[in-house]
This record gives sequence, C-alpha cells and structure tokens, in this order.
Amino acid sequence: MTSSEKIWTAGLVIIGDEILSGRTQDKNIAQIATWLQVQGIRLAEVRVVSDDEDHIVEAVNALRAGNDYLFTTGGIGPTHDDITVDAVAKALGVEVIIHPEARAILEKYYADKGGLSEGRLRMARVPDGAELIPNRMSGAPGIRRGNVILMAGVPHITAGMLDALTGKLEGGAPLVSETVGSWVAESEIAQLLREVEQAHEGCQIGSYPFFREGKVGANFVIRSTSRETVQSAIDSLTDGLATNGYDFTPGGI
Amino acid sequence: MTSSEKIWTAGLVIIGDEILSGRTQDKNIAQIATWLQVQGIRLAEVRVVSDDEDHIVEAVNALRAGNDYLFTTGGIGPTHDDITVDAVAKALGVEVIIHPEARAILEKYYADKGGLSEGRLRMARVPDGAELIPNRMSGAPGIRRGNVILMAGVPHITAGMLDALTGKLEGGAPLVSETVGSWVAESEIAQLLREVEQAHEGCQIGSYPFFREGKVGANFVIRSTSRETVQSAIDSLTDGLATNGYDFTPGGI
Repeated sequence: MTSSEKIWTAGLVIIGDEILSGRTQDKNIAQIATWLQVQGIRLAEVRVVSDDEDHIVEAVNALRAGNDYLFTTGGIGPTHDDITVDAVAKALGVEVIIHPEARAILEKYYADKGGLSEGRLRMARVPDGAELIPNRMSGAPGIRRGNVILMAGVPHITAGMLDALTGKLEGGAPLVSETVGSWVAESEIAQLLREVEQAHEGCQIGSYPFFREGKVGANFVIRSTSRETVQSAIDSLTDGLATNGYDFTPGGI
Repeated sequence: MTSSEKIWTAGLVIIGDEILSGRTQDKNIAQIATWLQVQGIRLAEVRVVSDDEDHIVEAVNALRAGNDYLFTTGGIGPTHDDITVDAVAKALGVEVIIHPEARAILEKYYADKGGLSEGRLRMARVPDGAELIPNRMSGAPGIRRGNVILMAGVPHITAGMLDALTGKLEGGAPLVSETVGSWVAESEIAQLLREVEQAHEGCQIGSYPFFREGKVGANFVIRSTSRETVQSAIDSLTDGLATNGYDFTPGGI
C-alpha cells in the first residue's frame, strides 16, 4: 500500500432492540464486513443502537462524517418499532416521502395478500431523494440515498440487498489476507509478530489464539492491499517460526 | 415500571479487527446482553472499533459517559495488537502499572510453560487502581476499575469472566419478557401492536418476522420490569390476534 492510496471505509449502524437484549445473535456484521472487503471498502466501525430516534440520528451522523459510506440494518419493516427511515431522514435533514416505485412494488406484492394496508404502506416511505435497492426475497425494497444505504435486518434479506449492490459502490484495492497457523502460545512469539509487522509498511498482523485438543495454538492473519507485502510478511513470519522450532500450517489451523 | 425507578445501563466496546474484517463472527454481544439482563442491567449501545488507540479511547469515553457500566472485550492478550489496557488507561487518565497479583498468577500459570516472557508479562498490566477478575480458563485475568470492566475477546473465556462477576454489580429489577408467536404477516397487525404498546406504560413490544415452511409469521416479544404489565400486554395482544382470526402460540414459534 502506498501512502497516497485512498482507503475507502464504511460505518455500520445496527438498529435493533433484539440484538441489545441478546434475543437475536447478530449475523449482519460478519456478512457485511466480508462483502465490503470484496468491494475494496473497509468496515471501520459498527454501532448497535436501540430502536430510539435520537440514538439512531446520533450514530448515523457520527459514522457518516468519518466514512465514505454509511450502512444501516434493521427497522425498515411495517410495524411501530420500525423507525429507521424517519431517523435517517432527520439525520440527513430531508423529508420523508412515499416513493412511487416502492408503492407500486408493494401494491403488486400484496395484491393477492390482502392489499396495501397502512402498515404495509410504511415500507414505501423513504428519505426524499432516495433510490431503491431491489429485494427479491420479500416485498419491501432497501433504500439508498447517496452514500447512505438502508437495509433489512433479517440476514437473508440483507444478503439479497448486498447482492443487488455488488459492484455498484466505488472502492479501492481489495484487502489481501493470508493466514498461517501454528501450535504455539501467541505469547511465545509476540516479539516476532511485532518485528514482522514493523518491517512491512502497510501490513497488519492479527493474532488469534485458540485452545483445541487440549493444546494452545494461534492463527496469524496478515493483511495488506499489496500481495507482495503480504507474501514477504508471510515469508518472514514462517522463517521466524521455523527458527524458533515451531511448525506452521499455511492457510491456518 | 414506575417512572421513578432507575434503569441501569451498560455500554460495550468490542475491540477487534477480526470482527470488522468479517473473519470472526461475534458471539460476545449476545452472551453479554443476556447476562446483563439477569443482573438487572440493560445493554444500551455497542460499538465495534478497530485495534487503534484513538478509536478505543473515543468509544470508551463516549459510552462510559452515558451508562452505569462500560464493558470491553478483546485486546488484553500478549501480542502487539493487544492495546486495550493502554487505551482504557488513557481514557481514564491513569497510568498503566504491573498488577502484583496478576504477575504472580501469570508466573504460576507459566511456571511449567517456559516462564514469564516479556509478551506474557504484558498480560499483568492494568490501569492503576484496578482489581482483577478471575479467569479459570487461561492464565490472564480480566480487569475491573470501578464501573469499567475489561474482558477477553475469546467467547468461552469471556463467559468465565462474566461468571466470576455474577451478582457483583449493582443493578435494577431484571427485565421480564414474554413471547407470543403467530402465523401472521406483521404488517397485518401493525396497528394492534402499536395500540397495545401505547396502552401499557413502561412496556416495549418488539416484532420479529420470519419466513418458514413457505409461510410468513412473526414473534412478538413484550418486555417490562413489571410482570403484571407484561401479562396484561400479552392478554391484550392475544385477544386482538384472536379477534382478527389469527391463532397464536404462547412462548413463540
């Protein structure tokens, strides 16, 4: 990575009392993070906030200020606790309008399901100036207004919306990462890890210890936007492991 | 819930590039949220930040200002990317010291594992004024300084530290929650949900739709610190479902 290369970043606001209560295990952080990496965008920060307008507004404004993109998940359904559209519109300083295309989509989707009730029509509401993100799983579309993207909270619907956005966001060079695993206590080679990272500019090394089969080990993940840097760091690290008498497994254990 | 009753809250800062890269699926939000509910404390906000001192300091200070407790997970191991103790000490405006008891624990733990290297000694470092949280799973203890609690990021070690803290934090009345499930599109009964919530002060109703067996349904979770309020809201909701011709399943589907 050269110092002049722009790093594209995104913030993510997860809206949902069900996550904060522990009732639902979040799956969107990992799937959005992984998807972003392929677009050449790094997930820089995540905030999980309650279904409270002020909290959502604050989080949205804080994270869109510091990042190229701002994603939200959750709170775009038909019920009283779905307030994301209102909160984001407030954060952006725009009105909420009924999107004619969203209305048409929902009218068609619910034509043989009892029609478009007041609750269902809520799902056609968007911040003024927004476009729609197709949703092939259920009726209600996602919403994009510039660099602010509102998605569903149910993970398989979120996945469909990410799929519809694939290749449509400007990003940088995708991060390259390689993993090496070793049956070593990470504390044994802390100094080696530090030295290898410092010797490779633009390279990050993460150390992820585990306990398996009654033994300690760790996976070391080397990340950079330059494949050459990653390979050089991998070589230095595996040389260092071998010198210290440790076997290693390319790709991780 | 009466309006005079104090609601105890906690913030959680998850430190870890491995979560933001999508490499690791977070499991700590759900387990900490669930544990906090039993202590009578609500998880009010979560922030996931990178292994960057400035980001950690900012998140720790933001969340401890608005909450009774501040938890962190991750970044208390022996390697160069473990910087949580330094960042939290900076946020609290105190020095980092070697905790004598932590040093003794680590000396004993590593006595037959090669002794206390520089990397391992890092795990005895704490913000000045801190006490230790026992860790029965691995050598390094968690750290508590007043209402700020630093825990490991590996979920089963985090679980052990939560266990050691059980009953030790002051909290309020635990939140009571009951679930009712129904094979209904949540959009069909959005108005009913809103009315039941509004009629029950201090009660929250969450609506969690799902798609199974080719059909739509939803679980409705009613929460309050008052069991009477929860029961009354459940009665109103199930009466409303029945009036509209929907079956329901106590406990959820």
